[in-house]
Amino acid sequence: MKTLTLIGIGTGNPDHLTLQAIKALNAAALILIPRKGPEKDDLAELRRSICADVITAPVTIAEFDLPKRDTSNPSYTQGVLDWHDAIAEAWQAEIARHPTAQSVALLVWGDPSLYDSTLRIAARLAPQPEITVIPGITSALALTASHAIPVNEIGAPFLTTTGRHLRDHGWPDGVDTLVVMLDGGCAFQVLQSQGITIYWAAYVGMENEIALSGPLETTGPKIIEARAAARADHGWIMDIYLLRREAKAG
Amino acid sequence: MKTLTLIGIGTGNPDHLTLQAIKALNAAALILIPRKGPEKDDLAELRRSICADVITAPVTIAEFDLPKRDTSNPSYTQGVLDWHDAIAEAWQAEIARHPTAQSVALLVWGDPSLYDSTLRIAARLAPQPEITVIPGITSALALTASHAIPVNEIGAPFLTTTGRHLRDHGWPDGVDTLVVMLDGGCAFQVLQSQGITIYWAAYVGMENEIALSGPLETTGPKIIEARAAARADHGWIMDIYLLRREAKAG
Repeated sequence: MKTLTLIGIGTGNPDHLTLQAIKALNAAALILIPRKGPEKDDLAELRRSICADVITAPVTIAEFDLPKRDTSNPSYTQGVLDWHDAIAEAWQAEIARHPTAQSVALLVWGDPSLYDSTLRIAARLAPQPEITVIPGITSALALTASHAIPVNEIGAPFLTTTGRHLRDHGWPDGVDTLVVMLDGGCAFQVLQSQGITIYWAAYVGMENEIALSGPLETTGPKIIEARAAARADHGWIMDIYLLRREAKAG
Repeated sequence: MKTLTLIGIGTGNPDHLTLQAIKALNAAALILIPRKGPEKDDLAELRRSICADVITAPVTIAEFDLPKRDTSNPSYTQGVLDWHDAIAEAWQAEIARHPTAQSVALLVWGDPSLYDSTLRIAARLAPQPEITVIPGITSALALTASHAIPVNEIGAPFLTTTGRHLRDHGWPDGVDTLVVMLDGGCAFQVLQSQGITIYWAAYVGMENEIALSGPLETTGPKIIEARAAARADHGWIMDIYLLRREAKAG
């Protein structure tokens, strides 16, 4: 392998694909598709179906089993680092089965820059291929599009953060808008809800998208309920939200 | 007009267009293209050329002169609000010339949610049309793609902010990564540069993209020089950068 292209594919709507992504998919010799186990097979299926829809060139598509993260590791960061090592090995093993493929590509959910490990895993490859990133529509962009809202107030900053960070640190100083990702369990519950508006969506961009918005005080409980029901229905959930409080930051 | 669709078109690379954007362009009865004066005619030209490339349906394309912001207003926010009023009037006037067009669309640089006024201007329209947003590749995504870097450290937050805000407030607490947009003049110069890495790009995603990265201490001066030269060359510049400091936030 000489080149590795990481292709942002958006958040599950096949129409999130850019023309650049379609060209990059067709330019690859080998595309790797991770299998994440039966409960997340719709995610692998989405990648398969995107490839089937837009690839017209002779590209080899190879699936591999994605190692699982050891969630019992008491250090979250160390657990993530070990997991990335294991994924890099899985890539290397699959790539070794296709020794003539000079250009390899991976389809990355959303965009490769945003709370995604693909770039960090790619940095572990030896020898190091030349890496190209094709930007994709993120869940944050799909969220604000779904609610038809700006992410920022005029000239004001906003913080993109994780559910874990919000839970551990609360609302940070100096900023009145938060975009919260990777939240396993409605971390907004740690906040004093008064004066905060929430814009939430699950499966954002996908056919089964659910979106709710309103004052956190009254909408928060509805989101908790809708989220639990959707998770039970689908077996998995991915959600994201934006929180805006009445301006306090200067 | 019954519906207004705000279509994110990415940052100047026609291949940033999503399939969703192409469908939305073709579904419009009327597309409005702003003229920003001769020194920014390449921006109008990009919109014209995107429309020419991907529209196959019978869509009317109408150009209008974009009012200028009164930069002499001592209140930045009031100057912006007045300007948005004037732009909404310009839209209304142009739309009134096409009374049979039920569905109107605008091409928005980057994405309509991110430091863009189109949604706020649309909220001024009376009667209020139904508004749909099509997400687009932002300059922030094009920047991280260009440098093949993640925007966030593992599980860590990042702040998206403006050059003005960075200049007035300095580096905020609790965050080690900043994405700085709308910077008219290298606001990073207010920072103590030690321990900070900068990833900068101008005209990001476009053919004439320039990208520089490295320690702020040595790369900052190079960026100031490259930026001044490029601005003189092109008559305008749009740039963006990411700053990362050695981890201090907890």
